[in-house]
Amino acid sequence: MSLTVIGTLAFDTVETPFDRRDEALGGSATYFAAAASGFGEVGMVGVVGTDFPDENLALLRDLGVDCGGVEVADGKTFRWGGRYEADWNTRHTTFTDLNVFEQFDPKIPTGYVGSPFVFLANAEPRLQMRALEQFDTPKLVVADTMNLWIDIARDDLQELLRRVDGVVLNDEEARMLSGEKHLLAAARKVLDLGPRFVVLKKGEHGAFLIGEDVHFSLPAYPVESVIDPTGAGDSFAGGFMGYLASVSNIQPHTLRRAMLYGTVTASFCVEGFSVDELRKRRRPDVESRFNELLSFITL
Amino acid sequence: MSLTVIGTLAFDTVETPFDRRDEALGGSATYFAAAASGFGEVGMVGVVGTDFPDENLALLRDLGVDCGGVEVADGKTFRWGGRYEADWNTRHTTFTDLNVFEQFDPKIPTGYVGSPFVFLANAEPRLQMRALEQFDTPKLVVADTMNLWIDIARDDLQELLRRVDGVVLNDEEARMLSGEKHLLAAARKVLDLGPRFVVLKKGEHGAFLIGEDVHFSLPAYPVESVIDPTGAGDSFAGGFMGYLASVSNIQPHTLRRAMLYGTVTASFCVEGFSVDELRKRRRPDVESRFNELLSFITL
Repeated sequence: MSLTVIGTLAFDTVETPFDRRDEALGGSATYFAAAASGFGEVGMVGVVGTDFPDENLALLRDLGVDCGGVEVADGKTFRWGGRYEADWNTRHTTFTDLNVFEQFDPKIPTGYVGSPFVFLANAEPRLQMRALEQFDTPKLVVADTMNLWIDIARDDLQELLRRVDGVVLNDEEARMLSGEKHLLAAARKVLDLGPRFVVLKKGEHGAFLIGEDVHFSLPAYPVESVIDPTGAGDSFAGGFMGYLASVSNIQPHTLRRAMLYGTVTASFCVEGFSVDELRKRRRPDVESRFNELLSFITL
Repeated sequence: MSLTVIGTLAFDTVETPFDRRDEALGGSATYFAAAASGFGEVGMVGVVGTDFPDENLALLRDLGVDCGGVEVADGKTFRWGGRYEADWNTRHTTFTDLNVFEQFDPKIPTGYVGSPFVFLANAEPRLQMRALEQFDTPKLVVADTMNLWIDIARDDLQELLRRVDGVVLNDEEARMLSGEKHLLAAARKVLDLGPRFVVLKKGEHGAFLIGEDVHFSLPAYPVESVIDPTGAGDSFAGGFMGYLASVSNIQPHTLRRAMLYGTVTASFCVEGFSVDELRKRRRPDVESRFNELLSFITL
């Protein structure tokens, strides 16, 4: 397996100012894998409850996702509820029911342990570490996290950051983790914690990549009609890592291109609920929007 | 004169969370001309009171600015006061004393009327129009405006917009003028009002340029230590127009490069109070930061 993601499969209940969707297929691993699947093989490690319909796994398999690492546990699937305000930047979590994810102990399938590209989606840092330790010698490990872990599990998170190559953070997380208000200074401080690069996501304001030998800044793709921002970050990571895995290269030039692919897959994600648009928009659509985005930034 | 600006010369009293400066040299024409002066000749049209010290005009002349269009009127010079909050995005105007600017009727000097590049800095739209009407046939006219005029002089502003080639707006102004929340949609609606292109400035989030045949998106230069954001917009316009005038070309490719020059001069502006840094950072510094910014956005 060239690319493996460890994360959640979930039912999301999302309210936007214009619409709502109940118990839609969601979760970090779902969004990541759906976005990455356009680039090549991707394996998912996660857990669902006995209430998770086969159709959902079938849907992911249809995209080419390997679900061999998805275990079914007694109990209910992880559920999350969120509500967005009209500016899309303000999100209220209405509920989080961990359910079977609470006892989740990731077991990396034998066919995945040689995976050169590994994405540790947002989870308790010790869980991320337990997953990471099962891999042989990945070429590139990237981790996501969230404000909760920065707050209550900082030591574990810092230990994890010493073991990964890259980290994806949003602006709030970067500020919280570093104690720096200025985003570039914040990203530099995060580099001091261990990773070779930081991808800093600023939502509608784009993203930047900073590392020892790379500094790349990219606007967001100007999506005209946002339907649901849920999953944008994981879809970004999926396009980013999916592209890197497909070319098996992590040189600065390739990381820069990967930023564009991540921006493109995230833009498709927010144009629909759940993975609706990610399912429809396959590689030719990705390439077409990649070229459009490239034209917006090329001197 | 290849480039002319019509705008204010002022005394600014600025409070930031870290420092303050009383009665510093400011004004839209001052910032514009200081930024543009690195690229070639620029003439200023404006008015000062009898309290305006000769040293200020000498300072501008030292930069190569032609002050032949600056008239001295009986009375006091325009004064403005502002206070910034720690996020730099929130600015409170503490006072605006128009003084001699209130009766200002711009007279374009004979040596300026053939100017191919004209910048109408923010002012009452009828004043901008009276200035514009005195020019022969400029190659490129760009106007700035503000929320006040969108609110109380929309008809005049719309008449002006039918007569200019480009307009520079910040995000709030673009939304207010167009009635569209989405910035790209807002910019497109502004294009329908007449200009061939819109430069939409988003402060720390960069700027984009949109026109019939051009769509270019650019992050801000990541300034590490902001001292005073006053004048950033006019400094952007000065670098943008200064470069265009220096190459006497307004093709899409040149407009894109001009966006980088504007970003660079705006970044120097905010690194000091008044025009302190714009004075120090001359063309070699501009080129150096241009290349640095280019490296941040190049795939």
